[in-house]
Amino acid sequence: MSTRELVVLGTSSQTPTRHRNHNGYLLRWDGAGLLFDPGEGTQRQMILAGVAATDVNRILITHFHGDHCLGVPGVIQRASLDRVPHPVYAHFPASGAEYFARLRHASAYHETATVIAQPVRAPGVIVQARFGRLEALPLDHPVEAYGYRLVEPDGRRMLPERLAAHGVTGPRVGELQRAGRLRAGGRTVTIEEVSEPRRGQRFAFVMDTRLCDGVYALADGADLLVIESTFLEEDARMAHEFGHLTAGQAARVARECGVRRLVLTHFSQRYTDPSAFAAEARRHYEGEIVVAEDLARVPVPPRRRPAEEM
Amino acid sequence: MSTRELVVLGTSSQTPTRHRNHNGYLLRWDGAGLLFDPGEGTQRQMILAGVAATDVNRILITHFHGDHCLGVPGVIQRASLDRVPHPVYAHFPASGAEYFARLRHASAYHETATVIAQPVRAPGVIVQARFGRLEALPLDHPVEAYGYRLVEPDGRRMLPERLAAHGVTGPRVGELQRAGRLRAGGRTVTIEEVSEPRRGQRFAFVMDTRLCDGVYALADGADLLVIESTFLEEDARMAHEFGHLTAGQAARVARECGVRRLVLTHFSQRYTDPSAFAAEARRHYEGEIVVAEDLARVPVPPRRRPAEEM
Repeated sequence: MSTRELVVLGTSSQTPTRHRNHNGYLLRWDGAGLLFDPGEGTQRQMILAGVAATDVNRILITHFHGDHCLGVPGVIQRASLDRVPHPVYAHFPASGAEYFARLRHASAYHETATVIAQPVRAPGVIVQARFGRLEALPLDHPVEAYGYRLVEPDGRRMLPERLAAHGVTGPRVGELQRAGRLRAGGRTVTIEEVSEPRRGQRFAFVMDTRLCDGVYALADGADLLVIESTFLEEDARMAHEFGHLTAGQAARVARECGVRRLVLTHFSQRYTDPSAFAAEARRHYEGEIVVAEDLARVPVPPRRRPAEEM
Repeated sequence: MSTRELVVLGTSSQTPTRHRNHNGYLLRWDGAGLLFDPGEGTQRQMILAGVAATDVNRILITHFHGDHCLGVPGVIQRASLDRVPHPVYAHFPASGAEYFARLRHASAYHETATVIAQPVRAPGVIVQARFGRLEALPLDHPVEAYGYRLVEPDGRRMLPERLAAHGVTGPRVGELQRAGRLRAGGRTVTIEEVSEPRRGQRFAFVMDTRLCDGVYALADGADLLVIESTFLEEDARMAHEFGHLTAGQAARVARECGVRRLVLTHFSQRYTDPSAFAAEARRHYEGEIVVAEDLARVPVPPRRRPAEEM
């Protein structure tokens, strides 16, 4: 089975600590690798986490505060040093294009990798790819910021016993999947007869923001939601002032949006006990809570079975 | 007594490892802090080493390969975030001014610190300061590179018993130091009568380079020499090809230049046993050898006594 997991590279906000580097998150999604918000030091965190430069197909930046982008030079230089053969696409708010250009040419090296900048100019679908639909939606932060989500289309899971019972085998299975129906054993077999609905998986990445429409739209129905919870509720006023979320707010979003696995991250260094984030979130959300730790791996939850569908 | 020590922030070359971050070295020299070659992640290494943003007065960059400069954005943004009140001067090869400009404005932040770029346009003295004379001399690397050295002028150490014997006390000591002679107890007292020679200390920083005149000129008479030894002699050919030194070459430089304490650093990740660098250097150099480790502190050796003078 294909791997869909989050590799956590860094979990601090503005100020790193002994145990938390600046942001950095690699989503492995089947064969593709999506690197979100590489903060300073991501290059090294990748090495420590066993992530190769060749594992990165896309870089997605929510906004151009340093803790979300200063790892870009190291990552793309590493792509050249390690002779990454495929293009690396970069998505970021178009208003920050100048920052991206500087980060891309921040030091002297022999550029061999192909980096293709694709600035996000408006909310909506930014990539319609084999692995799903990638969308960017605006967040509410002092500088322009976008969150991202990856939406796999709903599909159907073929059921081997039913296929066999209808005499559909070998290359004819693919034919049926493509055409939706075919003739077999003297009658027409439809795809509905030999398969069951398979819900597409959803991943959402919500960084620095106040509560806003974009947060809810991104989180909607996410199997795995990575969301900033820089502050605890006791500092809700400061969170609002600086354009951030609390763990309690993140958890309420997760509940209201039917999120299955909630990953809290981007913690202020003012808090020394990470369990406080989990405890606060638990009061609002019954699903699975992960307080992100550097170098952790968080699987995307297994697909919902049809019976779980609403 | 004033503190003169090297705080090692990172010791890897191009590829960081679990135990070695990219370059980064803070020289504490009395009240001043000189930050050499801040590679990516230096901001965090400073926190781990107990170095505050306010401790940095000058940033000195040998060349613009990523492992020597990608920490600049984090360091200077940290200076703004932490409200550093003094100006921070930056010295780097003038041919890399464009890189420095990009690094300086690589992300969005509220700039409050004063950063003053002072590109090195020619070899020679770049700063004549209270703490000594700072010089830049060219190295031999595929991109323009300068090494740096700090030379404290020779002076005189006042001897309290002799001062007392000649009746020179209180503010008159300073008067004698400034004027070189004064009248006391009915006769002329010269500074030579009440003091002994005090040799100025020297620190040298030699990064990516083949052996060249600049290496020897920088290392000449250094009390503390920080020098790259990316490779071992067994890979001398590769060292030459890529413009680097071996531990053996670094040690021979130290011997020939009368260096007192030799700090080897900037190790290729291909070697897993750091003791190999010390062993190789020991075959050529009898002085003190330090194989740099991240977060180590290396004092500048105590001043030579006059008897040690050549």
